[in-house]
Amino acid sequence: MVKKQLSKLKQITDPITDLKKYSPITLSRKRPKTGLAPGSLIYTGKVYTDKVNIHVMDYTNDRIDEIDIENPEDLRQYNHPDSVTWINVQGLHDVSVISKIGELLGLHPLTLEDILDTNQRPKVEEFEDHLFICMKMINHVEAHNKVDIEQMSMVIHENFVICFQEKPGDVFDDIRTRLKNGRGRARKRGADYLAYMLMDIVIDFYYETLDQVWAKIERLEDLVVRKPERIELRDIQVVRKDLIQLRRYMYPVRDVVHNISTRNAQFFSESTLMFVRDSYDHAVQVVENLDTYREILTSVMDLYLSQLSMKMNEVMKVLTIIATIFIPLTFIAGIYGMNFESMPELGWDWAYPQGFYAMIGVVTVIMIIYMKSRKWL
Amino acid sequence: MVKKQLSKLKQITDPITDLKKYSPITLSRKRPKTGLAPGSLIYTGKVYTDKVNIHVMDYTNDRIDEIDIENPEDLRQYNHPDSVTWINVQGLHDVSVISKIGELLGLHPLTLEDILDTNQRPKVEEFEDHLFICMKMINHVEAHNKVDIEQMSMVIHENFVICFQEKPGDVFDDIRTRLKNGRGRARKRGADYLAYMLMDIVIDFYYETLDQVWAKIERLEDLVVRKPERIELRDIQVVRKDLIQLRRYMYPVRDVVHNISTRNAQFFSESTLMFVRDSYDHAVQVVENLDTYREILTSVMDLYLSQLSMKMNEVMKVLTIIATIFIPLTFIAGIYGMNFESMPELGWDWAYPQGFYAMIGVVTVIMIIYMKSRKWL
Amino acid sequence: MVKKQLSKLKQITDPITDLKKYSPITLSRKRPKTGLAPGSLIYTGKVYTDKVNIHVMDYTNDRIDEIDIENPEDLRQYNHPDSVTWINVQGLHDVSVISKIGELLGLHPLTLEDILDTNQRPKVEEFEDHLFICMKMINHVEAHNKVDIEQMSMVIHENFVICFQEKPGDVFDDIRTRLKNGRGRARKRGADYLAYMLMDIVIDFYYETLDQVWAKIERLEDLVVRKPERIELRDIQVVRKDLIQLRRYMYPVRDVVHNISTRNAQFFSESTLMFVRDSYDHAVQVVENLDTYREILTSVMDLYLSQLSMKMNEVMKVLTIIATIFIPLTFIAGIYGMNFESMPELGWDWAYPQGFYAMIGVVTVIMIIYMKSRKWL
Amino acid sequence: MVKKQLSKLKQITDPITDLKKYSPITLSRKRPKTGLAPGSLIYTGKVYTDKVNIHVMDYTNDRIDEIDIENPEDLRQYNHPDSVTWINVQGLHDVSVISKIGELLGLHPLTLEDILDTNQRPKVEEFEDHLFICMKMINHVEAHNKVDIEQMSMVIHENFVICFQEKPGDVFDDIRTRLKNGRGRARKRGADYLAYMLMDIVIDFYYETLDQVWAKIERLEDLVVRKPERIELRDIQVVRKDLIQLRRYMYPVRDVVHNISTRNAQFFSESTLMFVRDSYDHAVQVVENLDTYREILTSVMDLYLSQLSMKMNEVMKVLTIIATIFIPLTFIAGIYGMNFESMPELGWDWAYPQGFYAMIGVVTVIMIIYMKSRKWL
Amino acid sequence: MVKKQLSKLKQITDPITDLKKYSPITLSRKRPKTGLAPGSLIYTGKVYTDKVNIHVMDYTNDRIDEIDIENPEDLRQYNHPDSVTWINVQGLHDVSVISKIGELLGLHPLTLEDILDTNQRPKVEEFEDHLFICMKMINHVEAHNKVDIEQMSMVIHENFVICFQEKPGDVFDDIRTRLKNGRGRARKRGADYLAYMLMDIVIDFYYETLDQVWAKIERLEDLVVRKPERIELRDIQVVRKDLIQLRRYMYPVRDVVHNISTRNAQFFSESTLMFVRDSYDHAVQVVENLDTYREILTSVMDLYLSQLSMKMNEVMKVLTIIATIFIPLTFIAGIYGMNFESMPELGWDWAYPQGFYAMIGVVTVIMIIYMKSRKWL
Repeated sequence: MVKKQLSKLKQITDPITDLKKYSPITLSRKRPKTGLAPGSLIYTGKVYTDKVNIHVMDYTNDRIDEIDIENPEDLRQYNHPDSVTWINVQGLHDVSVISKIGELLGLHPLTLEDILDTNQRPKVEEFEDHLFICMKMINHVEAHNKVDIEQMSMVIHENFVICFQEKPGDVFDDIRTRLKNGRGRARKRGADYLAYMLMDIVIDFYYETLDQVWAKIERLEDLVVRKPERIELRDIQVVRKDLIQLRRYMYPVRDVVHNISTRNAQFFSESTLMFVRDSYDHAVQVVENLDTYREILTSVMDLYLSQLSMKMNEVMKVLTIIATIFIPLTFIAGIYGMNFESMPELGWDWAYPQGFYAMIGVVTVIMIIYMKSRKWL
Repeated sequence: MVKKQLSKLKQITDPITDLKKYSPITLSRKRPKTGLAPGSLIYTGKVYTDKVNIHVMDYTNDRIDEIDIENPEDLRQYNHPDSVTWINVQGLHDVSVISKIGELLGLHPLTLEDILDTNQRPKVEEFEDHLFICMKMINHVEAHNKVDIEQMSMVIHENFVICFQEKPGDVFDDIRTRLKNGRGRARKRGADYLAYMLMDIVIDFYYETLDQVWAKIERLEDLVVRKPERIELRDIQVVRKDLIQLRRYMYPVRDVVHNISTRNAQFFSESTLMFVRDSYDHAVQVVENLDTYREILTSVMDLYLSQLSMKMNEVMKVLTIIATIFIPLTFIAGIYGMNFESMPELGWDWAYPQGFYAMIGVVTVIMIIYMKSRKWL
Repeated sequence: MVKKQLSKLKQITDPITDLKKYSPITLSRKRPKTGLAPGSLIYTGKVYTDKVNIHVMDYTNDRIDEIDIENPEDLRQYNHPDSVTWINVQGLHDVSVISKIGELLGLHPLTLEDILDTNQRPKVEEFEDHLFICMKMINHVEAHNKVDIEQMSMVIHENFVICFQEKPGDVFDDIRTRLKNGRGRARKRGADYLAYMLMDIVIDFYYETLDQVWAKIERLEDLVVRKPERIELRDIQVVRKDLIQLRRYMYPVRDVVHNISTRNAQFFSESTLMFVRDSYDHAVQVVENLDTYREILTSVMDLYLSQLSMKMNEVMKVLTIIATIFIPLTFIAGIYGMNFESMPELGWDWAYPQGFYAMIGVVTVIMIIYMKSRKWL
Repeated sequence: MVKKQLSKLKQITDPITDLKKYSPITLSRKRPKTGLAPGSLIYTGKVYTDKVNIHVMDYTNDRIDEIDIENPEDLRQYNHPDSVTWINVQGLHDVSVISKIGELLGLHPLTLEDILDTNQRPKVEEFEDHLFICMKMINHVEAHNKVDIEQMSMVIHENFVICFQEKPGDVFDDIRTRLKNGRGRARKRGADYLAYMLMDIVIDFYYETLDQVWAKIERLEDLVVRKPERIELRDIQVVRKDLIQLRRYMYPVRDVVHNISTRNAQFFSESTLMFVRDSYDHAVQVVENLDTYREILTSVMDLYLSQLSMKMNEVMKVLTIIATIFIPLTFIAGIYGMNFESMPELGWDWAYPQGFYAMIGVVTVIMIIYMKSRKWL
Repeated sequence: MVKKQLSKLKQITDPITDLKKYSPITLSRKRPKTGLAPGSLIYTGKVYTDKVNIHVMDYTNDRIDEIDIENPEDLRQYNHPDSVTWINVQGLHDVSVISKIGELLGLHPLTLEDILDTNQRPKVEEFEDHLFICMKMINHVEAHNKVDIEQMSMVIHENFVICFQEKPGDVFDDIRTRLKNGRGRARKRGADYLAYMLMDIVIDFYYETLDQVWAKIERLEDLVVRKPERIELRDIQVVRKDLIQLRRYMYPVRDVVHNISTRNAQFFSESTLMFVRDSYDHAVQVVENLDTYREILTSVMDLYLSQLSMKMNEVMKVLTIIATIFIPLTFIAGIYGMNFESMPELGWDWAYPQGFYAMIGVVTVIMIIYMKSRKWL
């Protein structure tokens, strides 16, 4: 217990260890589907769980039912206008389950392909009877000091919303609580408002992650100023790469929300759209923060590089001062170490130590004055 | 008294101290609301004052009443078309008061949320019966050598304007004076003109702040040219970060004013819009100044870095000159310090001092000529 | 056999050799047609094959015929609405054959000119009865560790699609398989869907190439961090130039697909356009990847350059430490090597070794303390 | 006389002195009006002259009258459609005169405010019965080697044009001459053509100023190549700042002219608009020149910095060559200066000078060969 | 003869000489017309020829007449719809001739002014009965290793095309040949097709010039990699400035062609416009090449600068190695050269050479091991 606290203390007092322990975001890039027919259903992500979990919340203003479903067939009963249904699917590796769900709800093959392709770019697509939204759910997990990124696809229908996530665990717990205790607007409104809430909380968590990035930048800046010798450019580059990654995931979301708030009015009531516009403001601010952080990180890097070169200057100056003083002196000593048969100075009474050290002193003083005039000392 | 004047004198004669004492703008970033229901009213800023202060100025062309209100309920009487009312609310920490005001004046929950979120991006939003404008009030406080930033939200109704500020103290004193002495256009026009005046003076004060930034840049440039050894890149970076910050707050204001001047004609009469377009010109100029200052700051930084490297060059040159002259000489002295049994030169009559010093002289002259030819001396 | 495996092993364990062996993309630039009349048919590429190969696949939902055609005249029979025909022409050097085909199918002279000009920019052009699309087919050939780029032009008619390629070998084998086994959508749909499939697979292979580039960047980054002395900036520049090249070929494709998906509805049915829009998403992602890779490569370069300068700093520091310690010591030794007649120290009992080495020790310790205080040790 | 010619000669032969004497453009920034009511008339510029000078040229195709007016009231007579009147006001410090003129001609208070605010951004504004244009008049005064910038506002009415300038002296003398001798189009056309001529000549003089800047850039480039030791980065930065300044003044003019040529047709006849479009071409070219100069200046700066670092390299190389040759030699001499009792070499017959100098020679030759192989010599 | 071949050989084997001999493009900037009335006809270019040469080709599908005209009056006869006339004017210094031609063909004064102003920006302007196009004719003259730039203005009328060029010699010889032998489309179509052919060949020659620039960039890159000591940054900068210049001339041409292909349909038949769109593709590719070359040149520059700094590192490393080994050794030799009366080591039997050189050897080996561990050797 005490140990743990101590180690926590150390973490606080030693920001460098903290920085070094940080696991950077890895760039997912493999898209191993080249050559498959369009609409082929192949899951491109990692397998996180054994079984696909299908969680259903079905609610009206008056009641709320919560159930885990085994057989996708059971979803059929929820497609009716009397209640709003939120179907949450976690785990995408079992393609047969996903395609079964898609069939039941009449999803387009390309939509299913997009749901299963975990490298899908955030986007919104309108179909005749549903709206498809794809975003990244980004969550900074404090415990592991790492950023957890998974794809979150959402199909919005008139009466229900289905979410597809790569793995168990998400950022929606607050929404579940709100729905359960039934206060506020949450249960009074339709599927469009549920979709808005999901989207909004995903964007809200972007702030959390950006706050962590910002904390890292501030720590780096502080270190660059106070202990430049303890960090390397690589530590800065790790954050820079993280920002590049996050921008890839967060930038398109702004356009997605803008698109919804301006064009796809069919699936959203006017009063919900007012809330969506508020989400758009947040998405814009996320993008602005990303840009600001990038600029500040660049300035931190400039600072670091100039610190390096200041250090170099200082080292060179010391070398020059030492060499400039002692090289001439060594030469003088060398002269009187010569073995010429007749060197009258050697015999003078006051030659050593008086004469010699006076000479040494005069040369040294001249050099110091010269260097002072050049502002090196 | 004398001391104070002296210290003031020092401040003027020592621009570096002045620069170092400067407290940079801090980046507000925490948005601790993640997970709350949309429209939740939570104040995200600091608490500056005990009590929310509600100040009312109610005027027609003929009279003006000024009153501090205790109970928000009392605001009800001011919503009538016979006079223009300016309600100024300072201090946002007491959410119950703010939500009471919002209820009385029929504000949308999201508007109230925006008013209380002090990290809100500058924006304008049109509602059925009011216009919501959110800006940053930026004021350079000379006494503390710091920039004071607070959020200023404004709701414009047909008959009244309400301002919400984070803390006591603002930039509106000139407007109060104008309203009180009743000369000029101020009291002859409606709520739209009052809103314009408030917006305009907020933008006017942006110039003041930018002037201070510019003064800092000029001082830095001057120091870089005259005493580069006294400043560090960090001093330049502080201003650079300030500019990044100010740009975040000031850039969106241009779009806000543009939006008002072109689209939201409902709340602004045509004659007031002409003034708003003038404000737009000012906002454009603010943005241009920001860009110009940034470019000039970049050039100051380039200058500083090149000064560093010039300095380095100079140091290296001196080292090279000293070493190039004395290393060969030391070698010569070393030769005649050798103990070979037969070194005939040592016995020659004119060997020392004539021969030796002549040799030293010749070598030195050759080296100096060489260096002159290379333009190092 | 064993040797080969060994050398393969070495390739894996020594990423640098792998990098050095890589043959960069060469910039095709010569356009030796200056001064010719517009529409002149001259092949500007290399000759890869003896004979122009004309391959025809003619299919309906029920059957598929595959045939190599000798005489372009034989193509005449395939222009009828009962079946979909895919004509694949490989080898463009025999202008007479190409112009014969153009004549038979009523292609515009400028289209033929574009087909034969292998430096044509990717583009789409709409004609009265056909659509002309020109793209680069980019394929990373693992065996030769090089990127293979050739031009692929496509004419889309109501009943057939003709592809023109520079040389034998392409990326369409998967499509041929799909057509032959006749499952899925492939054979059920018209020429527009065939064209979409061809376009889509070309873009799919862009990902493959970009993955290879990305692998190279990651390897470079790893080397920069772990063994900077083993790579040169030139290794990074090679990848940078590759990215510049690939961008030239891939960027315009996004606009081409966008153009098709939004405007040229005539040749594409609505249901196929839904698939084309999916291709557009992929093209956008290709462009985003290019930009991301470029940014990361820039950061790798910055890292490399800063490593160089760190190295330099380290070298200089060692030099300074050695010189700073030994130059004063050498001077002291020089003093006691002088031949003044009276140097009383020389006769003191404890002068050597005790006195002398104590002095040396004290000077050394002072220097080391000084350098420790400067954090050089 | 002779002296003057000599000094002129020196100026030509010594471009550096010329550069150093140059007085850079100062950035006007103070806008001391914060807090004043909108439309308050306060002159923000410098006072250049005692009295406001009002010069009137009234002309038809047949006659021209030229007169200096004392009392603004006298302007009343010129507002009639029979002749074109050009009123030129020089000196803006006497606000009462300006506001009197504004009143007589029915100008909007904001227009008057803009006329008096000498930091106004170039702009065009359309009012019901007049068009307001504001530009910077930029004139390179050869005699003082400085750029003279003043604000020129222009109100275009159906029958007259009023110009407001900050001080006596302008670039309009050629227009006055053209009007007086009455040849060409000048007097045959209306007030719109007069306004065009004024605008056009202002832009023409931008070229003059840019030519001077360009001459400076070329001189800098020449110096950087031939005598880099004689200039400093600061000399380049001065021109860079000038370009930043000029861009601020010249860029908006392009939009102003574009605006006039495309939208404000009311005040300009179709045949005059054709000339305005020509002016627009010139304004575009001014902007292009600015951009080109900036790029070339950047390349001059890069060149200068690389020269610095080349110089450094050269210095370091010399140091290394000297040290690399002499340090080992000094060590050898040091060996034979040791006092070991038994050093047999010291007694060998051919030890000195033959043996010793042969050894020295061999070491030197080896070092030189090594350095040649490294291409340092 | 042999000599010439030899010198040619040398040119090939020594790319540096070739680079140095290259005469860069000079920036034309003087626009000595400031203050003249708009539409004043003054030739601003150089005088290349004695007499203005007016060459006329008048053709129908059946015949072609070619004639040099002395008197501009004779042009009158060619303005009829029966044949197409191409009037080519070379030499613009005789303003009277040009203005006579303008008068005969009804050109606007501003068009004439633009024709005579050789610094005119590329543009297209539509008049009631003619279209005015202005471009730069850029031709790389192999013989002089320089780029030849002149202005080419073109007036397109229904029945004729007039070209104005600054001097004799152009890039149109291929077109003259095509017209004379009368094959292909050339003579079958109207003046619009002639204009297209002229425009197209001008753009075609841009490729030639860019190819030369590209060859230079490749040569520079090769030199930077293989013999960095033989080039200077200045050699790279010369090409950089050339690219800046060429961009100025070539960029606007894209917009000119785009303009023609989309808007000015009046003067171009639909079938010719299809060819113009092809020219537009070429113009876009020219712009893309310019951008690509610029990027690659930047990367060559980065490479060069990093080579410089690598070189520096290497030099410093050698210095450090030499100094680090020999400075301690010299100190040791210095110790045993001291004259203390009692230095027992000096008398030991094995002190010299065994002991001393063993010590020297041990120190050297330690230093070398240390440096090996630091990977300096």
